[in-house]
Amino acid sequence: MLKLLVIYSNQPPSQEHVRRLMALREDIQVVVADSEATAIRHAPDTEVILGHRYLHQTLPHTRCLRWVQSTAAGVQHLLSSDLVRISPILTRCPIFSDIVALHAFTLALATLRRIPDAVAAQLRGEWARPFDMLPLPQTAMILGMGYIGRAIAGILCQHGITVLGVDKSPSPERKTACDELLDNTNWRRHLHRTDLCFIALPLTRSTANIFDEAALKALPSHAVLVNVGRGGIVDTNALVRQLRNGHLGGAALDVIDPIPETPTDPIWKTPRLLITPKVSVFYPGRQRKLEEYIEIQVKRYLDGKQLLHKVDINALAE
Amino acid sequence: MLKLLVIYSNQPPSQEHVRRLMALREDIQVVVADSEATAIRHAPDTEVILGHRYLHQTLPHTRCLRWVQSTAAGVQHLLSSDLVRISPILTRCPIFSDIVALHAFTLALATLRRIPDAVAAQLRGEWARPFDMLPLPQTAMILGMGYIGRAIAGILCQHGITVLGVDKSPSPERKTACDELLDNTNWRRHLHRTDLCFIALPLTRSTANIFDEAALKALPSHAVLVNVGRGGIVDTNALVRQLRNGHLGGAALDVIDPIPETPTDPIWKTPRLLITPKVSVFYPGRQRKLEEYIEIQVKRYLDGKQLLHKVDINALAE
Repeated sequence: MLKLLVIYSNQPPSQEHVRRLMALREDIQVVVADSEATAIRHAPDTEVILGHRYLHQTLPHTRCLRWVQSTAAGVQHLLSSDLVRISPILTRCPIFSDIVALHAFTLALATLRRIPDAVAAQLRGEWARPFDMLPLPQTAMILGMGYIGRAIAGILCQHGITVLGVDKSPSPERKTACDELLDNTNWRRHLHRTDLCFIALPLTRSTANIFDEAALKALPSHAVLVNVGRGGIVDTNALVRQLRNGHLGGAALDVIDPIPETPTDPIWKTPRLLITPKVSVFYPGRQRKLEEYIEIQVKRYLDGKQLLHKVDINALAE
Repeated sequence: MLKLLVIYSNQPPSQEHVRRLMALREDIQVVVADSEATAIRHAPDTEVILGHRYLHQTLPHTRCLRWVQSTAAGVQHLLSSDLVRISPILTRCPIFSDIVALHAFTLALATLRRIPDAVAAQLRGEWARPFDMLPLPQTAMILGMGYIGRAIAGILCQHGITVLGVDKSPSPERKTACDELLDNTNWRRHLHRTDLCFIALPLTRSTANIFDEAALKALPSHAVLVNVGRGGIVDTNALVRQLRNGHLGGAALDVIDPIPETPTDPIWKTPRLLITPKVSVFYPGRQRKLEEYIEIQVKRYLDGKQLLHKVDINALAE
């Protein structure tokens, strides 16, 4: 018997999805755990974990775990000593990069065209014009040229914007996706010519707080910063301070670390700051596409084929 | 002596612009009228009117008017019996179509990605997720394939969206700008397959209220309507009614006729409706670009060359 433990994060699996998984081979058992306790109870004889919701709590109780399929594109936050010790196959799910890129571009345009000011005026019932629109961007920098960064670059190129990509790995697909590929040694020298700056990096020891006050200050006063990567990459306090001081044309964050917990947190009212609550990956077809992708992966696993989007846990731990 | 009367709408002319106009020929007099009274006082010996702010009031007092250069792309609202009687050369200013198109696309993306909901949640100090995102559009209809409509079509094509253009004139540049060119006899039959509908029409007797309740009802329930043309083209009451009834994914209006005058006007709180107060043409370089364009036109006038973007007043009156 092959036990699959399903622990998806945003939405429970559909009944059809569970049925289709069970139909893949007759000895398959699918357990949908909607609590930590259920996940832990089923851990000992689970061979495959789909999702990562209770992964940290579940891992210590596994005995025959062979594969973890995350539903996230970036899996750095799943790293733990248990994961390194057990070392299952770990696969990630970078299939939503196009939608994340479109959300990032939407955040940039909404900031440039002052949509938040328009919404605030509308909520006050006020025909308030003109707003202080921003100049059209000519040069953009994208930190992180993985799937999402490259998808953002694709959109920007089509809008005639010069793209400076930043990545420590100078792979051919990263090089061709942008006009100029920079790395961690020289990207800061190009901030002064960046009108639009996108962050699409994973959170690692070397990227944490990499977008610090010095980086923010090095951007031109009209520049716009958009973060769809991880909250911990930007020094949030420094960003709020710079915006309050009148620096930057604006900023938009789909990720913040830590998430503001009270309505009185001063971050909410930061001028020229647009916040969306980590929704970049959301769209109506999301769950269906995720489930189809996971079914394809499970079928590959059963057929002994190479799994898509494998992650090297040791490299993750470095 | 050649008298130029300057009556710009949004912003007064810069001093440099006035100086550059005066430097074009030694007998040029430039009068900047910042009131109706001043404009009327200078009307009798004015040969050229730049702008259209007090045009209706000024026209009856002109005696040697030969040319009116509007600052607007659409000049239907300048039509009057005085204009037809005097019949000066009338030129319009369609140089901002790219920026209007970008604003229109921003309104569409902001609506699809529920940015207004995010801003409202942010103003309440609330990390509210997920929003009810809309499906990614596959087919768009653009009513009016003039400069602005074609610029919108250009953006949509680059995003892989099929474009149905609607225009009564089947000119080659209109045909090549979209995947399928429809006209006023058949566009309604294609509304059911329209995910995203842009209005970029001038307001004429035949376009007034053309987007009526029947057209709104014919759109799919997830469709998004964006109007950057003229307010009078959409039946606003019908739109508000349909949105309140739960029809349409959303709508965004940069133009409304009449403009809501009080904060208690119910239009402000219409669900899924985003309003920007006729700012589609605004951006930091706007005034400079406008002034440069008008200087080029005045130079052409002085040199006896054909003026750019002439309008047939008789055709306008039909």
